Amino acid sequence: MRAVQITEFGGPEVVAVREVPEPRPHDGQVLLDVARCGVNFADTLLRENAYIASVALPLVPGGEVVGRTADGRRLAAIVESGGYAEKAAITEDAAFPVPDGVDDVAAVALLAQGLTAWWLVGRVARVQPGDSVVVHAAAGGVGSLAVQLARARGAARVIATASTPEKRALALSLGADAAVDPATRDLTAALCEANGGRQVDVVLEMTGGRVTDQSLAALAPFGRLAYYGMAGRVEPEKVSPRALQRRSLTVSGFWLTHAFARPEVLTEAYAEMAAQVADGRLRVVPGGDYPMSQVRRAHEDLAGRRTTGKLVLDPSR
Amino acid sequence: MRAVQITEFGGPEVVAVREVPEPRPHDGQVLLDVARCGVNFADTLLRENAYIASVALPLVPGGEVVGRTADGRRLAAIVESGGYAEKAAITEDAAFPVPDGVDDVAAVALLAQGLTAWWLVGRVARVQPGDSVVVHAAAGGVGSLAVQLARARGAARVIATASTPEKRALALSLGADAAVDPATRDLTAALCEANGGRQVDVVLEMTGGRVTDQSLAALAPFGRLAYYGMAGRVEPEKVSPRALQRRSLTVSGFWLTHAFARPEVLTEAYAEMAAQVADGRLRVVPGGDYPMSQVRRAHEDLAGRRTTGKLVLDPSR
Repeated sequence: MRAVQITEFGGPEVVAVREVPEPRPHDGQVLLDVARCGVNFADTLLRENAYIASVALPLVPGGEVVGRTADGRRLAAIVESGGYAEKAAITEDAAFPVPDGVDDVAAVALLAQGLTAWWLVGRVARVQPGDSVVVHAAAGGVGSLAVQLARARGAARVIATASTPEKRALALSLGADAAVDPATRDLTAALCEANGGRQVDVVLEMTGGRVTDQSLAALAPFGRLAYYGMAGRVEPEKVSPRALQRRSLTVSGFWLTHAFARPEVLTEAYAEMAAQVADGRLRVVPGGDYPMSQVRRAHEDLAGRRTTGKLVLDPSR
Repeated sequence: MRAVQITEFGGPEVVAVREVPEPRPHDGQVLLDVARCGVNFADTLLRENAYIASVALPLVPGGEVVGRTADGRRLAAIVESGGYAEKAAITEDAAFPVPDGVDDVAAVALLAQGLTAWWLVGRVARVQPGDSVVVHAAAGGVGSLAVQLARARGAARVIATASTPEKRALALSLGADAAVDPATRDLTAALCEANGGRQVDVVLEMTGGRVTDQSLAALAPFGRLAYYGMAGRVEPEKVSPRALQRRSLTVSGFWLTHAFARPEVLTEAYAEMAAQVADGRLRVVPGGDYPMSQVRRAHEDLAGRRTTGKLVLDPSR
């Protein structure tokens, strides 16, 4: 079958389509004809061997697939690897049924990004009615869904950040009340200003560096910062527990991998979001439907921050 | 009236009973004939000007009182200062009715300590059924209640730490499943061992230094450490958000002062605990009923870690 295989770590030039053997499903697995696979920022880090977990080569990357089983069931699944391929072996118990009315791009977008957004909003930051919620990278895959999920949980004010006027306009169209440029020198002041002069209750943060530091400074008592990535590749300042105590603040880290230990929660989360997509309450922003043969361009566009919304590869092209 | 007044910061020798004018209640306040006032570890820090908030002299210390108003109502209240006295001005809206069946010591113990324990267990760490919960300083005012409140919320295992065999026996008698000496060199391993070899879900921590560091290392994915004091007066290591992300951990700080902005929640919490004390489900550990004239000894005993349970002063003696 055709698949993207990495045989050495490096830049976008190391991803190329090759002919490789079909995967052999283990016990509890089933083979999926992949209709679309997701392309994630994490894939570009993994390709450079810069991801949070280390990997062994050769590798077929890709952690998200949607497609059909031989017996005709339409399923979406997160896989450890092997997604950038015509066929993928998925674990049946960890696969999610995809209802009619959810297209392939949305079905993939609800996997790593959707489940991350859901877990962050509902379980990590526990957004409550009346909360003010800052969503960084609000035009991205997680952010665009988090804006809507926070709103649905009754957030009084959703403040988006995004790096371009177009992305900020998108965030506003998804329901954010205000949109801020994260490059603003005094981001703390800008976030509070966007919240009517008050400190904020929740920050969903995946940039790192000064964006984390200055967001933490914007939190009100009982405020919660959920840290789930470092797209800027700069570590934030370390946090003093005593400083958290003085302001009754919470800092949480979240990595979706740990959620895989709770498949029943993920299944519920996926079904809930899929129903919302099907009836129009939740909007997935498509970010580009690339032929698998153009995987290199997909990686370049994603790493270059030129994309908005969910990127997928089509293994049939 | 007789009261304890501090005119200079220093050791236990600076607390002495003096004759001072009665407080004049402001609007919304009422005068309470103090039956007992609480003595807290924070009072000893405040006396040395080492507390989290700074204070001005001269000062009548004491943040907790129970007693009766002129019209006969029995109320307990947290006050900013002025508790170590025969009479105290309390804010009526922030005072809690004390039901029959709750004695004066318990009524005071449910104030700063009880409300802290309740908020930590229910709102900060959000103990869930099945959780394993470490309670440091489990023989102390907050810890002894937190052990019981965690158990009542369905914690699968409560692991107490306390510095002496007597204190550990007390923690076990309150419902802890295991008791560990916090001076154990490898506290991380000791906590996991006490949890049947597994990492723990929740840590309630008020010691600081290596106890915080080694407790954080004992947390399972989605684990939560709630940091609410630094009795050991040594700061813990600062925490890297990226390290929290790698393990999906949460670190929260909590200072009861911020909860005063939610009086309706505190009122509910106090009433809930008072009902549990009255019907025997929640046990307050008395730690010594000192004549106010012996306030210095009370401070020495508390700072010397010689006490267990709730210390109160009796202003009539």
